[in-house]
Amino acid sequence: MDPPRGHNAGERVRASFARQGLMRLLGAEAVEVGEGYCVIEVPFAEGITQQESYFHGAVTGAIADTAGGYAAMTLAPPDREVLRVEYKVNFLAPAYGEKLVARGEVVTAGRRLFVCRAEVSAVEGLDERVCAATLQTVSLSPARAPDRKPGA
Amino acid sequence: MDPPRGHNAGERVRASFARQGLMRLLGAEAVEVGEGYCVIEVPFAEGITQQESYFHGAVTGAIADTAGGYAAMTLAPPDREVLRVEYKVNFLAPAYGEKLVARGEVVTAGRRLFVCRAEVSAVEGLDERVCAATLQTVSLSPARAPDRKPGA
Amino acid sequence: MDPPRGHNAGERVRASFARQGLMRLLGAEAVEVGEGYCVIEVPFAEGITQQESYFHGAVTGAIADTAGGYAAMTLAPPDREVLRVEYKVNFLAPAYGEKLVARGEVVTAGRRLFVCRAEVSAVEGLDERVCAATLQTVSLSPARAPDRKPGA
Amino acid sequence: MDPPRGHNAGERVRASFARQGLMRLLGAEAVEVGEGYCVIEVPFAEGITQQESYFHGAVTGAIADTAGGYAAMTLAPPDREVLRVEYKVNFLAPAYGEKLVARGEVVTAGRRLFVCRAEVSAVEGLDERVCAATLQTVSLSPARAPDRKPGA
Repeated sequence: MDPPRGHNAGERVRASFARQGLMRLLGAEAVEVGEGYCVIEVPFAEGITQQESYFHGAVTGAIADTAGGYAAMTLAPPDREVLRVEYKVNFLAPAYGEKLVARGEVVTAGRRLFVCRAEVSAVEGLDERVCAATLQTVSLSPARAPDRKPGA
Repeated sequence: MDPPRGHNAGERVRASFARQGLMRLLGAEAVEVGEGYCVIEVPFAEGITQQESYFHGAVTGAIADTAGGYAAMTLAPPDREVLRVEYKVNFLAPAYGEKLVARGEVVTAGRRLFVCRAEVSAVEGLDERVCAATLQTVSLSPARAPDRKPGA
Repeated sequence: MDPPRGHNAGERVRASFARQGLMRLLGAEAVEVGEGYCVIEVPFAEGITQQESYFHGAVTGAIADTAGGYAAMTLAPPDREVLRVEYKVNFLAPAYGEKLVARGEVVTAGRRLFVCRAEVSAVEGLDERVCAATLQTVSLSPARAPDRKPGA
Repeated sequence: MDPPRGHNAGERVRASFARQGLMRLLGAEAVEVGEGYCVIEVPFAEGITQQESYFHGAVTGAIADTAGGYAAMTLAPPDREVLRVEYKVNFLAPAYGEKLVARGEVVTAGRRLFVCRAEVSAVEGLDERVCAATLQTVSLSPARAPDRKPGA
């Protein structure tokens, strides 16, 4: 029998998150994780801007995609990995402010495929403005054998 | 009369690229820029991986999106900016190797909207494997007034 | 001064809808139109199925896309047309039942570009099941000159 | 052992196509089918236009999506069905002319997931103009039991 979905999901998400070089590089943090959702924040920093000192669209895309993927992980059996299939981002407004917040949630959880969505907002003081929306597909895979190495 | 499209495009792309904090952070480089295309490379580094030491999907997405956007810039009048409207990425294979290469090109250039596509490959020695495909919309805007600041 | 957005929007949407050959062919109807939203229904018919007698995915896509586009039209100045830029559909569940219902709404309305989303449900008696989600970009254009003909 | 991929693919595609109510309704025809590709044509008709007498964007989307799906079917084992996961369309130019031609091809064929792309052109005499590009994900499923009915 499968273990209950969502069992220890927050712990698994945080452990996985901690191993992600890119998330560290961006200064991103998983500030909320629950069954079927995940919220990621990234504070403003010079290193993650585009040419106009706004948050780079790719940072917006990265945390949206990551928030959706981790939302899926919270509903996946613990021995399965969540693999990216595809995502789509619409940019809704320029992203400037003191931080970006990505809220990902699972729309439908199938046996192999999950559809997730995420919204990213830029926060400046008390103002919060939605600046991107995403729709995303992820798939579940059997756990990798521990000896499988990249490039091997 | 508009200046010729593509005039000094490579120079503008490189100047814009140099101001992008995120591209520096990723160690990305614009290795080829011409009329309607742009090639970006990013070498493997611990900081840009996901939890399995592959290139993070968001890095793949970021350089694909950026390669497409700069491909558009090469065909834009010099006083216009290229703004992201949306993009979509399909992940085709795991991205591991010594570097990622994103090749962006313009599919159609309208007066206000451009459609671009990009392909990202992972390179390991002589092996090159396509690991992502994107389709993207960007728009052209009037040049911003120089005094406009983010958050202002 | 622009006329108020949404002025006579329902009327314009219904007039435009009535001229759409494809919507007639599908038996589709705009059952609700208001500021920033549009609901379209299409009853089951042999002619609009795929090979398994479910509603064809393309019908699902067509009414989702159309519901989003008309939602945008309700917020557009009356002398502007709404043009498709792109859309993306995720199929969430098989679409079978007595009718499909697409609910489109505007997410953000810019001066030239609108982002819309739509959800499509399959209805069978009292059961309603979401079977598709879309994210879409449309643009506003100046009204066409009346003498411009396709192919001319 | 799996039968060879592509075995009798053309025959299967044409049989499936013939059962699709929507394709008949649109007057669409699969004019070329081979290993990893499929070409669909649809002649101009009043019934498939939008409000300006151009081909309706949803028709463009429908045949692009269908061409991609059948391209995948040609590489699928004969006992498997091809199911739509998602697709994205970018509209590149107005679609008017005497017919639309959608050329679908498989980009990558995995064990469960295929990524396909399609391009749609509008043809008028000797002129052919690309009017849409798509990127699409489909999945393979076990063959359905013959007694399973929609709505049952």
